[in-house]
Amino acid sequence: MDLSEYIRNIENFPKSGIQFKDITPLLANKGASEYCLDKLLEMIGGEKIDKVVGIESRGFFFGTLLAQKLNAGFAPIRKPGKLPYKTLKEPYQLEYGIDALEIHEDAIKKGERVLLHDDVLATGGTAKAACKLIESLGGEIVQCNFLIELEFLKGRQKLQKQLVKSLLKY
Amino acid sequence: MDLSEYIRNIENFPKSGIQFKDITPLLANKGASEYCLDKLLEMIGGEKIDKVVGIESRGFFFGTLLAQKLNAGFAPIRKPGKLPYKTLKEPYQLEYGIDALEIHEDAIKKGERVLLHDDVLATGGTAKAACKLIESLGGEIVQCNFLIELEFLKGRQKLQKQLVKSLLKY
Repeated sequence: MDLSEYIRNIENFPKSGIQFKDITPLLANKGASEYCLDKLLEMIGGEKIDKVVGIESRGFFFGTLLAQKLNAGFAPIRKPGKLPYKTLKEPYQLEYGIDALEIHEDAIKKGERVLLHDDVLATGGTAKAACKLIESLGGEIVQCNFLIELEFLKGRQKLQKQLVKSLLKY
Repeated sequence: MDLSEYIRNIENFPKSGIQFKDITPLLANKGASEYCLDKLLEMIGGEKIDKVVGIESRGFFFGTLLAQKLNAGFAPIRKPGKLPYKTLKEPYQLEYGIDALEIHEDAIKKGERVLLHDDVLATGGTAKAACKLIESLGGEIVQCNFLIELEFLKGRQKLQKQLVKSLLKY
């Protein structure tokens, strides 16, 4: 199966000059999303995972499915102000300006083996901030796992300490 | 298993006077979330479902898991400007002012049997708007499925045409 047939290219979204990779056709198709989940699991191999962390909000789709298949818990990383309990916050650079991500303080226990998942690895800014949050809580990052990697944006360079795997490369 | 032990009450979130039901302890615990998923599936019974629709973004967690178990596709309903392709938009009333939800025009095919899922049924405003979007696309709503229902907010009254089921009632 060619999963890229289920990824829709949207020109000039969210702003002019950006080509957005829309995964909703993949989610809508049961067979394709099942195949995709199997392939994401293959990238993880037999690694024991205690917790899957998904980044808001497209990282929640396959993040929760991966957690279930890996027999792991799930924890969300979200934009500021969304998580209701005590949080750690980590800023990251945008093209113009600064944004931040948050994680609940009790989302990960010290020493837990963590899989970080998001739909797209682009510049790597959000993934790097997410890794910092996980490591601040004492989590051991087993793999940074992405459905799509936009290689020309060189996001891997921001994640040099991590094992980075992606299913579809553009 | 008493699932309410995995729901954390947060006082005065997102604003003063509101008690927020935090489901992250449930998501973090593999056994509890598996039990919860089984119970949500029991509420659906043997109904054939073509598509599960989850409301941004806490409806994505169990929404994607339900879709997988039901052998159905998944479609997100999101806040305005988040979905990249052509959308339908439906406004809904907030305590002060108006917000809106969007769905992709191709998220549901005419005649598809749809399960709507969200984590919490509160005043019912978002669920009602979500139902309108699904029906505008020709979807047949089999059930509105919630993890938590805040009964004192009478959200069911806004969904009188629908079969509404919830797992935990407060």
